[in-house]
Amino acid sequence: MNKQDNILIIGAGLCGSLLALRLAQRGYKVELYESRPDLRTTDISAGRSINLALSDRGFKALRLAGVEDKAREICIPMYGRLIHDTKGNTFSSNYSGREGEYINSISRGDLNGILLTEAEKHENVNIHFNKKCKSVDIENTVAHFKCYETKKEFSIDADVIFGTDGAGSALRKSYYLEKKFLFSYSQNYLTHGYKELEIPADKLGKHQISKDHLHIWPRGEYMLIALPNLDGSFTVTLFLSYDEGEYNFNNLISEEKITEFFEKEFPDALALIPSIKDEFFNNPTGALGTVKCSPWHYQNKTLLMGDAAHAIVPFYGQGMNASFEDVTVFDAILDKYEGDWQTVFKAYEKARKQDTDAIADLAIDNYYEMRDHVANPLFKQKRKIEMDLEKTFPAEYFSKYSMVTFNEEIPYAQAMKKGRAQDKALLNLIADDEVSTSLEMTKDELKIILQKVQEETNEILEEDKIAGLK
Amino acid sequence: MNKQDNILIIGAGLCGSLLALRLAQRGYKVELYESRPDLRTTDISAGRSINLALSDRGFKALRLAGVEDKAREICIPMYGRLIHDTKGNTFSSNYSGREGEYINSISRGDLNGILLTEAEKHENVNIHFNKKCKSVDIENTVAHFKCYETKKEFSIDADVIFGTDGAGSALRKSYYLEKKFLFSYSQNYLTHGYKELEIPADKLGKHQISKDHLHIWPRGEYMLIALPNLDGSFTVTLFLSYDEGEYNFNNLISEEKITEFFEKEFPDALALIPSIKDEFFNNPTGALGTVKCSPWHYQNKTLLMGDAAHAIVPFYGQGMNASFEDVTVFDAILDKYEGDWQTVFKAYEKARKQDTDAIADLAIDNYYEMRDHVANPLFKQKRKIEMDLEKTFPAEYFSKYSMVTFNEEIPYAQAMKKGRAQDKALLNLIADDEVSTSLEMTKDELKIILQKVQEETNEILEEDKIAGLK
Repeated sequence: MNKQDNILIIGAGLCGSLLALRLAQRGYKVELYESRPDLRTTDISAGRSINLALSDRGFKALRLAGVEDKAREICIPMYGRLIHDTKGNTFSSNYSGREGEYINSISRGDLNGILLTEAEKHENVNIHFNKKCKSVDIENTVAHFKCYETKKEFSIDADVIFGTDGAGSALRKSYYLEKKFLFSYSQNYLTHGYKELEIPADKLGKHQISKDHLHIWPRGEYMLIALPNLDGSFTVTLFLSYDEGEYNFNNLISEEKITEFFEKEFPDALALIPSIKDEFFNNPTGALGTVKCSPWHYQNKTLLMGDAAHAIVPFYGQGMNASFEDVTVFDAILDKYEGDWQTVFKAYEKARKQDTDAIADLAIDNYYEMRDHVANPLFKQKRKIEMDLEKTFPAEYFSKYSMVTFNEEIPYAQAMKKGRAQDKALLNLIADDEVSTSLEMTKDELKIILQKVQEETNEILEEDKIAGLK
Repeated sequence: MNKQDNILIIGAGLCGSLLALRLAQRGYKVELYESRPDLRTTDISAGRSINLALSDRGFKALRLAGVEDKAREICIPMYGRLIHDTKGNTFSSNYSGREGEYINSISRGDLNGILLTEAEKHENVNIHFNKKCKSVDIENTVAHFKCYETKKEFSIDADVIFGTDGAGSALRKSYYLEKKFLFSYSQNYLTHGYKELEIPADKLGKHQISKDHLHIWPRGEYMLIALPNLDGSFTVTLFLSYDEGEYNFNNLISEEKITEFFEKEFPDALALIPSIKDEFFNNPTGALGTVKCSPWHYQNKTLLMGDAAHAIVPFYGQGMNASFEDVTVFDAILDKYEGDWQTVFKAYEKARKQDTDAIADLAIDNYYEMRDHVANPLFKQKRKIEMDLEKTFPAEYFSKYSMVTFNEEIPYAQAMKKGRAQDKALLNLIADDEVSTSLEMTKDELKIILQKVQEETNEILEEDKIAGLK
């Protein structure tokens, strides 16, 4: 056993704090360092994504660490998308045809606070705030920090270092710069950035639009979304190109232009965002990037987890869930190989990498789906049929979205492969008029559709397999 | 006009020297800096890839610069693959069913020498050897160098800087580190590396195996290839995992083990490589990486070209051809927008990026094809039919390989899309016994196959389009 090892975790965000909690529960000595102040006592959310979508993969990991119930207490269920057109009309599109399948809006800060508080209850965990990791000497497992309070630099020598320090990970940067091994690495940005705005609660502290939905204003090149908060407000996010199209972050520099843009594209939202000018000018513009890399570990010394290993764009609502699932998978690998860190690290990446690659790609797919396709007639017919199939055959049909979001036992890579084939089958069956798209269908009619979709899906998978000569 | 601009080109390899030549022909003042000594007077090839495959995209660019004939003089045509099994049996697989379509083995050094000599004939070009670029101040277009002769560091201030400094580009690294813009970047390594060996000429200076072929010894996890040189020798390249499988670079550390490996897997090759031990231990092990990035330019100041912008693995024989084609495409964009560098750089990437991304992906595909599929019965049947189709319907059927290699007017991205669909169609038609694979087919039988392949290919493209909701 190596429970005497000094474990250093860099980054006390969602992944790092859950990892610290779980390792503490397993009996390890954990030092957890965080660059920001303690978010339980300081408001540090300004302009950063303050609510997130929590779903079944995330809950599974929280359950493992015994904090699921605490998290559920602060969740707001969202049962589907509510899509707003330019005239202010709305239509809804459920996430699932099954009962009890929904995603949850949750405050990043509140959830992070719960995890920190739980971790701190363990005397084998110490949390250090305002300590920014600058670089890691991976050969000697020494991390170099700067303290934001004393302005002094210092170093921590550990036996094992976990980098859960997010998309801009200092540990990952050290892998890249130290060049001790061939490090495959990618950072890919979308042409669009994002900015957060707010729909406040009404005078009674109530939500001004449905709190049971994730709201979308899809406009092709532009998109607005809104997720509900417990205090009656919504966090609104605008996705917009940096420098292309008629309106973009580079040319929206006057109040007139911003108002013109929102009046034209999002009039119903504009009416609910009183401080649009201040928020637009004061909140930062965030970048939308995907990070992939390999290997995640160096020998028996260091490991990247969470966004540090695989940052993804937010469009599948799976970033936090994927990072939490990292902990689930890592815990199972620990059960198997505990005592041999190198084997644990290797086995962990082997088990996990294809799935984090898949959710990264799925999240990019969903960017286009949300922006462009949710209002497309073919896509709408497909979703309608999928809802009917899930409702009528709850044990037999699972849409790609359901496999990804509500079926935590199906790995992301498998959900992607099957889900993409199924989408292709269904879209082509509809386009070729081979399935009925009438509004009311009997169970027998739906049964025929189910069989056609299954056959076509299997054929697509088989043809892909032959083309891959596998 | 901006022909008075001082143009600095970093890197006098194949792309940089062709670019310098072409810009000189257009009247620009060019300073060309190279880290290595002049390869026309110094042997610097040891253990590096010393011959390459030159084909139609490369020739087109050389033609533009008036040096095609000089290059053709030092070419050795290779008409197909000659595949060697473990018993020493061979079978050939042509690259095309059409007459006059073949690839060419050419010495990297000799071709580079021709380009340098041609560039130097222009008095508006100065070439500086042994000057290593360390970094570039992209805002001020100042490049920092170290002279390997004097050991001194110095800086060059230019109006425009081109980085043709290869896969390890200093200009690209400065983009990454300076963080002046969102830089999408990826470096991805295969699990395999490579090592070069030699089959010398026989006593009469002749080739010991067919010089009309590219030789392949495909073994799944391992692969050996050989390309002919003008002096009767072959440059042999071993592709092998760093640390996986029974034999790998990490465990081949004794002469016994190396001999055992070659005797088991490549006995006929072993008999022809007399200095295997020395070469194995003395020649470096090279990495196989793919680099993609965007944007390639910074404002109107700097531009990445060739491997610096898009390094690919060598398995399609297109690395040099793609870099030369960069110059063709850039030259056409210059015709259109000369005088406005920023517009030129933007338009160039817009026209070119999808195609260099495509050839990078195709080269990875071919890695698996050469390693695993060339000896696969289904794959062999497919190639047989494709040869028959190309021979019988030379104006109507073009295999993916032909589109990529011999059809320089078809952009790589288009060749990939069409070629992949066509491969999938043909493989599935064969697997489903929907096309005859008899040895001798009449023209009428082949016509039916051609029609089936075309129909199936179009259907695949159509279904993909519907699935993409485009």
